[in-house]
Amino acid sequence: MTNFFSSNFKLGILGGGQLGKMMLYETRKYDIKTHVLDPSQDAPCKIACDYFQQGNLMDYDTVYNFGKKVDILTFEIESVNLKALIQLEKEGKKVYPSSKTLEKIQNKGRQKLFYKEKNIPTAEFIRFSNKAHLTEGITSNKVKIPFVWKSTQGGYDGKGVSIIKSGADLAKLPDTECIAESLIDFKNELAVIVARSPSGEIKTYPVVEMEFHPEANQVEYVICPARIEDKVAEKAMEIAEKVSKAFEHVGILAVEMFLTQDGNILVNEVAPRPHNSGHYSIEASYTNQFEQHIRAILNLPLGATESKLGGIMVNLAGAEGYIGDVVYKDIELILKMKGVTPHIYGKKQTRPFRKMGHVTIIHENIDEARKIAEKVKNTIQVISI
Amino acid sequence: MTNFFSSNFKLGILGGGQLGKMMLYETRKYDIKTHVLDPSQDAPCKIACDYFQQGNLMDYDTVYNFGKKVDILTFEIESVNLKALIQLEKEGKKVYPSSKTLEKIQNKGRQKLFYKEKNIPTAEFIRFSNKAHLTEGITSNKVKIPFVWKSTQGGYDGKGVSIIKSGADLAKLPDTECIAESLIDFKNELAVIVARSPSGEIKTYPVVEMEFHPEANQVEYVICPARIEDKVAEKAMEIAEKVSKAFEHVGILAVEMFLTQDGNILVNEVAPRPHNSGHYSIEASYTNQFEQHIRAILNLPLGATESKLGGIMVNLAGAEGYIGDVVYKDIELILKMKGVTPHIYGKKQTRPFRKMGHVTIIHENIDEARKIAEKVKNTIQVISI
Repeated sequence: MTNFFSSNFKLGILGGGQLGKMMLYETRKYDIKTHVLDPSQDAPCKIACDYFQQGNLMDYDTVYNFGKKVDILTFEIESVNLKALIQLEKEGKKVYPSSKTLEKIQNKGRQKLFYKEKNIPTAEFIRFSNKAHLTEGITSNKVKIPFVWKSTQGGYDGKGVSIIKSGADLAKLPDTECIAESLIDFKNELAVIVARSPSGEIKTYPVVEMEFHPEANQVEYVICPARIEDKVAEKAMEIAEKVSKAFEHVGILAVEMFLTQDGNILVNEVAPRPHNSGHYSIEASYTNQFEQHIRAILNLPLGATESKLGGIMVNLAGAEGYIGDVVYKDIELILKMKGVTPHIYGKKQTRPFRKMGHVTIIHENIDEARKIAEKVKNTIQVISI
Repeated sequence: MTNFFSSNFKLGILGGGQLGKMMLYETRKYDIKTHVLDPSQDAPCKIACDYFQQGNLMDYDTVYNFGKKVDILTFEIESVNLKALIQLEKEGKKVYPSSKTLEKIQNKGRQKLFYKEKNIPTAEFIRFSNKAHLTEGITSNKVKIPFVWKSTQGGYDGKGVSIIKSGADLAKLPDTECIAESLIDFKNELAVIVARSPSGEIKTYPVVEMEFHPEANQVEYVICPARIEDKVAEKAMEIAEKVSKAFEHVGILAVEMFLTQDGNILVNEVAPRPHNSGHYSIEASYTNQFEQHIRAILNLPLGATESKLGGIMVNLAGAEGYIGDVVYKDIELILKMKGVTPHIYGKKQTRPFRKMGHVTIIHENIDEARKIAEKVKNTIQVISI
């Protein structure tokens, strides 16, 4: 076994945002040397890694040369130069998850086609190369309003996804490659985190339930365990495991799903990295998703995925109407509440809906946790000076 | 309330070892700016703080100038220049715990006298200014062999403490100021961690039980909750709280105690900072001792001290016969065990008995946890290349 700890082994992380930052909690715990690449001089990962490089994640030479210097390379964001990863792998560098996996996921159209190919249940869709073709699809009745529009590249935090209910909505869309998906009348939105290592060892986390903010299309509450029937949970976990294996995924994979009104599970999309829906795991799980991602990509034994107790995560997003140096108003009031832990990502500037942090609420009773979570949400405000 | 998070507020930490490192886990989580001072260029705290200074913690000018640059100053080691802290406080700088508290604790003789003064139960003792006086105390029958010898300054990790059973043992002792304590026939060694903030808010952690290695005088297992009767636990927590208040302590205070054969609690000694006996709290408690220390010294509300489940900590100390670049042999075998989390402090060189890390075992059943802990201890070895 490679000596990863207190040695000259180097782990490279592409992307230095809050996901990478939380990976660094674990590499510090294990004293694993890390290199991080990010375009921002104020990246949350800037301190707590051994070597920080400011640079463009979409630039071939930057990513290639960064990767050459490390022993294993991973990423915390999908928007990285794919060709550089492919070349690094050709030269024998370990990249996890692999470029093959990332390629299937980066483009949402390709991702959906892969589900169809592998008989993974997902909403019906059609891919269009530009807006003119999309419009044609609507006028020729191939696509019926209302539907879900998704750009195939570059969406994050709810952007690049719109529910189209009218011609006015359609008019606002940009001219890009996209998919038009059936609008699912779902009962719940769920997510399952799956960890898989190069050895093939695989473990799934309990199903989480996601309550969304109606307009901003951002998650308000992530609830673990999801308040669904056991047999539905089992089905969701089975499908998530199937997805991870189909992608031959290494590391953490977050599988977002819909539970339809008639009790079926449809895969919405995946993220090939630790995910917002898994942040509760830091306080609530035997092994949090970040430690698990590190274990998986280093081909170390996976840790237990059980929960110690119920956990709910609430995002701390910038309040509307505030842009500037951030202030976490009334944070001391939530620090009084039992089982409540805020996480501050370290972004200096707030703006509306920007993910600035999160708060986890733990409790033995998930319904009690949900009440406290609402109180937290109504107390702390992310504003500016 | 001062804006501590993602702001220009600076927290200074004197000492950059593993205790400071684990404080930095929490300052990173909360995005609190930190300065750290430590004599070693390879200190565990070197990365993950905003500003690291290499320097002598016992030097007046170094400590004074370091303290001037921060807003609140704390320490993770008792051996710091006390006069510099006193001067900083005179100039209005917040130092927690205070120099007054540290002064009473730094010298073990003064510490014991303080317990007597405040009616805190502790073993009988006599203080001697040098070895000649100690010897005189023995020959004049004031001190009876066997007894416990402790140097009044500079002891740590079991050093500076000896059980004197014979004239030969006495001959080996250095010529320093010391105390001679009655040898207590104890049933258990216990510890209670207490958190107290400037506002006077105070919370105690559950009692932990410490099993010691017979020769090296180092802890082998820290077990939480301690396997003692409830009324004994209550008494221990009451006494610990009394000690914290007596010292007007701010931050984390670890109170080590003996449970005598006839069911009494005697205070052994205290550490005015997070302590080895509280490391289990990272995985097992609602609020770990490091986060709690930060909350306390910033006068933020204290977090809940309850346990989520049972926890046992095992120290990872350098194996006898090995000096050099460290290797954690068979660490991958313990990573397979459910509920087992190693912590690697980041010291590059191992030597016999050096505290290189720890492993925490969590389990709903403390007796099961104890079995797994023994397995962990018999599996992983801290050796050198």
